[in-house]
Amino acid sequence: MSTYLVTDAAACGDRGVLAVVAAAVRGGATAVQLREKTASARDFYELAVRAAEVVDGRALLLIDDRVDVCLAARAAGARIDGVHVGQSDLPVEQVRALVGPDAVVGLTANTRDHLREIAALPSGTVDYLGVGVIRPTATKPDHPEPLGIDGFGALARVTALPCVAIGGITVADTDALATVGAAGLAVVSAVCSAPDPEAATRDLVSAWEAAR
Amino acid sequence: MSTYLVTDAAACGDRGVLAVVAAAVRGGATAVQLREKTASARDFYELAVRAAEVVDGRALLLIDDRVDVCLAARAAGARIDGVHVGQSDLPVEQVRALVGPDAVVGLTANTRDHLREIAALPSGTVDYLGVGVIRPTATKPDHPEPLGIDGFGALARVTALPCVAIGGITVADTDALATVGAAGLAVVSAVCSAPDPEAATRDLVSAWEAAR
Repeated sequence: MSTYLVTDAAACGDRGVLAVVAAAVRGGATAVQLREKTASARDFYELAVRAAEVVDGRALLLIDDRVDVCLAARAAGARIDGVHVGQSDLPVEQVRALVGPDAVVGLTANTRDHLREIAALPSGTVDYLGVGVIRPTATKPDHPEPLGIDGFGALARVTALPCVAIGGITVADTDALATVGAAGLAVVSAVCSAPDPEAATRDLVSAWEAAR
Repeated sequence: MSTYLVTDAAACGDRGVLAVVAAAVRGGATAVQLREKTASARDFYELAVRAAEVVDGRALLLIDDRVDVCLAARAAGARIDGVHVGQSDLPVEQVRALVGPDAVVGLTANTRDHLREIAALPSGTVDYLGVGVIRPTATKPDHPEPLGIDGFGALARVTALPCVAIGGITVADTDALATVGAAGLAVVSAVCSAPDPEAATRDLVSAWEAAR
């Protein structure tokens, strides 16, 4: 979870999502979440199958929101590790039931109420939390009030689950996020919009290794 | 399948989708497909669970596109009969594998190429076809070239699967569609936008019963 890419097709631009995923994995990304908010299910499924070939087990590969896309791609033999869901996606208990006990299930959380609800779930329902946004970001237009790094730390302290920080993070934030207990950094623009996504990922990986 | 409602939240207006579903079932609708192209997965799931209570086994209840919403609602005990998928949704063989052999799986088809692909699938993959659009319709902005009633009939003749006609159908079309071999009529606006959805459904049911 330490250097976690969330894809955004618009930010990836003409080079395409798969090229950015490949570059990020070469650069040392440890997790990749495919996020496609406007693609058809068919296109998302085909992207997932092809991304699994590109990633080939070198990083965790997760599907945002569409549990059925994850299940269909896994049924077709694609190496997909699990799903990431938000608070307006399917209830996470149902998600865990659908993907089974061995898949990775991540959940977005950004309030103390969310953490209370998560603490009440059966053990093993959720594997990690995506907590943010840290700063305002253009890639998630409906994002909640930014937490800042201190707000992130306050939430990370009251849950036993690993918390990945997301939202407007840059390589300059690694020290501060490591200090407040982040399990990793999730980035969208910092890699998807970078002139060289591989180098941008490598910089994040190095900064994170130095910081923690 | 004979009188088949496809929901459209915008067309249902302020009265809401559930009120229209309830009215259609009172009016004799034999199938209801919940179609939500912009709702979050959570909202779609909650709608599905509530619609299952409203329908309560009096009509088939199907979920458009989101196989995971169907599976999650079924896992929560909701009486959902299956899914309807289009050509840009998940591959229908994968859909059948995910929902199991007993669920209803419908597929949109509107070309001879589609019918050839469907004929090559294992028996039992698809239970019925939604074939259209018959006429231009505002509720599906990206609809393909309208088939007309004769075009529908030409497709229905070359498949063994029941074909439900969809797209811009009104009560005046029932005789012609019955003559060319429709297994049923699917409507969106004709019921969702009707001043009295129950009466509009009843009119369709009566016309269909008289026509076939």
